[in-house]
Amino acid sequence: MSKLPPADLFQAQCPSRGVMEHLTSRWGVLVLIALREQMHRFSALRRRVGGVSEKMLAQTLAALERDGFVLRTAYAEVPPRVEYRLTPLGEEVAEHVAALAGWIEQHLPRVQRARAAHDARVTGGSRQRALA
Amino acid sequence: MSKLPPADLFQAQCPSRGVMEHLTSRWGVLVLIALREQMHRFSALRRRVGGVSEKMLAQTLAALERDGFVLRTAYAEVPPRVEYRLTPLGEEVAEHVAALAGWIEQHLPRVQRARAAHDARVTGGSRQRALA
Repeated sequence: MSKLPPADLFQAQCPSRGVMEHLTSRWGVLVLIALREQMHRFSALRRRVGGVSEKMLAQTLAALERDGFVLRTAYAEVPPRVEYRLTPLGEEVAEHVAALAGWIEQHLPRVQRARAAHDARVTGGSRQRALA
Repeated sequence: MSKLPPADLFQAQCPSRGVMEHLTSRWGVLVLIALREQMHRFSALRRRVGGVSEKMLAQTLAALERDGFVLRTAYAEVPPRVEYRLTPLGEEVAEHVAALAGWIEQHLPRVQRARAAHDARVTGGSRQRALA
């Protein structure tokens, strides 16, 4: 059996790129963090993740399930009950995703100050050029 | 001055969502990791990040510069020289992005095994239904 080369996100053809996209899509990030808090039924997950459509949530969950990050369990009940939770693999990676998300939430004011300073420089530059 | 509510990625209107998208876009992730290794000129960065177009790289860098993660320095030389490096804010967040990317590269084989097992279950299920 031939040994595969190590994964390298910098290579356009490396399959790690697809995995990264499932994990870092807008809804992927939020689903992982929500399921890290607790398991959820589909409808509860949809309420938790503000703004997600039913279709996008279903697609996001299907991709994360196929990658082995999310476990979907359907109970034979009436009405049917379907629960989603992280697998052990999903818990590992969700820890990194949550650390990144937590950093963003915590440091948003620094980013907003940087943006304001940048926009002031750009606007100031345009005004200087307009006056020249 | 009114105090802003804390950032919350689960809220559709929270500005943290935009920051997350700049950081976790396919090219955002790779640019942050490449600049974490060393500063780069535009052309060198484009070679490092496999598959990126000139336009997408320029857009990615502009968004990361406005957010305060990347510093662009243009030297008055002929031919013009423009260098990109991480700011201290960019170095902080790039550490989290690199940890996530490193996890993905390291554990890609586990994801690929999960996918193969998933696809075998799905295919097996279809066959069973077709035979029933």
